[in-house]
Amino acid sequence: MMKKMDYQNVRGTQDYLPQEEIVRRKIRRTLEDTFIEYGCKPIETPILNYTDLMSSKYAGGAEILQEMYTLSDRGERDLALRYDLTIPFAKVVAMNPTISMPFKRYEIGKVFRDGPIKAGRFREFTQCDVDIVGASSQVAEAELMMMALHAFKKLEMDVVIQYNNRKLLAGMLEAFETPLDRMNKVVLVLDKIEKVGVNQVLVELAELELSDQTIKNIERFLMSEDNEQYTYFESYASENEQVKEGLAELIELDGYLNYLGIQLKCLFNPFLARGLEIYTGTIYEIFLENQLIKSSIGSGGRYDNAIGGLIGSTESFSTVGISFGLDVIYTALSMEEKQWNKNDIDIYIIPIGTLKQSLYLATKLRKDGYKVELEMGNRKVKKALDKANKEGYPFVVVLGEREVEDNQYKLKNMETGEEIIHTFTF
Amino acid sequence: MMKKMDYQNVRGTQDYLPQEEIVRRKIRRTLEDTFIEYGCKPIETPILNYTDLMSSKYAGGAEILQEMYTLSDRGERDLALRYDLTIPFAKVVAMNPTISMPFKRYEIGKVFRDGPIKAGRFREFTQCDVDIVGASSQVAEAELMMMALHAFKKLEMDVVIQYNNRKLLAGMLEAFETPLDRMNKVVLVLDKIEKVGVNQVLVELAELELSDQTIKNIERFLMSEDNEQYTYFESYASENEQVKEGLAELIELDGYLNYLGIQLKCLFNPFLARGLEIYTGTIYEIFLENQLIKSSIGSGGRYDNAIGGLIGSTESFSTVGISFGLDVIYTALSMEEKQWNKNDIDIYIIPIGTLKQSLYLATKLRKDGYKVELEMGNRKVKKALDKANKEGYPFVVVLGEREVEDNQYKLKNMETGEEIIHTFTF
Repeated sequence: MMKKMDYQNVRGTQDYLPQEEIVRRKIRRTLEDTFIEYGCKPIETPILNYTDLMSSKYAGGAEILQEMYTLSDRGERDLALRYDLTIPFAKVVAMNPTISMPFKRYEIGKVFRDGPIKAGRFREFTQCDVDIVGASSQVAEAELMMMALHAFKKLEMDVVIQYNNRKLLAGMLEAFETPLDRMNKVVLVLDKIEKVGVNQVLVELAELELSDQTIKNIERFLMSEDNEQYTYFESYASENEQVKEGLAELIELDGYLNYLGIQLKCLFNPFLARGLEIYTGTIYEIFLENQLIKSSIGSGGRYDNAIGGLIGSTESFSTVGISFGLDVIYTALSMEEKQWNKNDIDIYIIPIGTLKQSLYLATKLRKDGYKVELEMGNRKVKKALDKANKEGYPFVVVLGEREVEDNQYKLKNMETGEEIIHTFTF
Repeated sequence: MMKKMDYQNVRGTQDYLPQEEIVRRKIRRTLEDTFIEYGCKPIETPILNYTDLMSSKYAGGAEILQEMYTLSDRGERDLALRYDLTIPFAKVVAMNPTISMPFKRYEIGKVFRDGPIKAGRFREFTQCDVDIVGASSQVAEAELMMMALHAFKKLEMDVVIQYNNRKLLAGMLEAFETPLDRMNKVVLVLDKIEKVGVNQVLVELAELELSDQTIKNIERFLMSEDNEQYTYFESYASENEQVKEGLAELIELDGYLNYLGIQLKCLFNPFLARGLEIYTGTIYEIFLENQLIKSSIGSGGRYDNAIGGLIGSTESFSTVGISFGLDVIYTALSMEEKQWNKNDIDIYIIPIGTLKQSLYLATKLRKDGYKVELEMGNRKVKKALDKANKEGYPFVVVLGEREVEDNQYKLKNMETGEEIIHTFTF
């Protein structure tokens, strides 16, 4: 007798069985259909890339590089699995200088990060990204935010988008005389405010050895009751160029959001920071309104320097993007206990000595667009009907020799029990 | 000034730009929609797998193992990128013993082979597979063959399916007293008959040092004018159990194909062999009728022992599958010069000082399901219309301040030049 094998999935990866994958397919298609409606064009880039490209200094930064899977091929080339879809996008722009700008592309694909494993964090996961290169107006941001709201509405998920502007935030910290070498650390601490609260943020800021005056200024900013009003920033704007530019961009963006009527779904958060250093302007994160998941289920922003940097060009490659995590959206949907139709079958045909005719009937019904399962496991009628009930198949045909002789079949509605006789030439 | 970077794709991989990817998306969705109509259920398995699993002796065989990409993760586990979707499917069956049988799953995903590069052969490519485990009747084969014809009809591709039975072929060679140790080599030589012709096959058979009688028998089989008639095999069937079983299976299968009315699209080819050793019964390959591509664009067959072997179980896991190569189908479609609509846009909106209102109009039209591109590159009207013509956008709206004031927009049909005025509240 053979030994039964004990297979496992690699840590940080998993299989999705049909019940799960049907929901994931719905998410993927809904996002893709929405991307298409918004004029986004599909591209497909390889998972295998040269390590040199993936570790460019304009790429994801040191933390991500540590999590890169590397390998070499039979030609002993140094390769890496992509860890995002942005670098491959920049590479496509670099390799195809005749692409018509603005270029608005989407890509849905697997990315890989050999990082620590937490709940809901995988080493192999699917990103769904839209980026627009060559558009400097805030209309690009507004369109992507609208697109995100539209997609989640189709998925029947209630979300809000928090947004901010990195110039505004950086300018404020500049105005508070935050030393340049600690700017990014301060930003990262502020980014945690929703998670850990103001007091903990102040504790962590103190550890950064800022001057008393800087600490005091930041604290006053944090505690201010009107820091979500643009008027709060006006006095700073007159002294600081970054605050001025950031504020102007926010006001421009708000003009679009208001006109689109989505201002109630979009909340300005002056402390939203986004971890990555690449962002240069508007940033946004999408959250579930019900907060069943605390972390964002989509995010993005403007990064005007990264693609030019990757390409090695001084031309401007204004870029704004948004990224949706298929896995976190799936997790959110599966927590909401919605009655998604996880059953892919319209009609289940059970042959009783009529396998050939049942296959023929199944084929005809499929050509009419029905999703049809033909029982080919030799189940007896009772067992087959048990299966139909368990799987929730809405309609069943039990096809016996009598029905074939009479050139008819009976379509049974499994919910009401009603049977309708259809004539059919076997 | 910065150095312009010179990026390349890894040998054997490539980018697909929108014009290509739109066609690939159509293929992918057509196949997936057809799979769903045929009652197939989606699963998704990881690309990263344990090397042990991928190199199991029931897997693809020594040749494929040489082409496996291997790597290790931060936990120093030995990992490999999957080279097909069959082993991951077998793993899912092994890990989920409560799956209801027959289990008919599909998976569409990337696979990786570090093999020699030829025209149209990639190291990273997309397979679209359907397999049914737990169905021993030839009705399963017939259903998959029907499904393939149905899918290619939707893609407007004329195909034929060649089929054979491995038991029949092996039994004939047995009857000719082919030594067991050279059986598989003979099968591989016969498999090339369409490509190299009978004479070359005879030359290669002679190199295998078979007895004169065996060579003579095979030659007579090859040259016979009625070797495509089942009657030809009847005398062998009475002496050889494998021929008998294979013939019975072929006759059963033909019963289904005839009843479905697809017998003219399905051609029995007694020398079709399929390279892989795993096949145990019916085998089939799909070819273009126009032969623009000589190699098959889809193939599969019955392999009743592989999953049980992988699982390490003596239970029967009758399995039959079919695999479509997205890349070869794409290549075939792109050779046929069909007028696929490679343009994803219904309406292109060109704002003249009306960016905000144009975004609003675009959003409303998208909510009605139209695919809308908003010009956000500040193109002047003339340049924008040039772009519309070049890209083949069917409808264009040039939105000026006057239209906004009058609460209307003009939808221009780019083919006829006709303009229709729509009222719209800005």
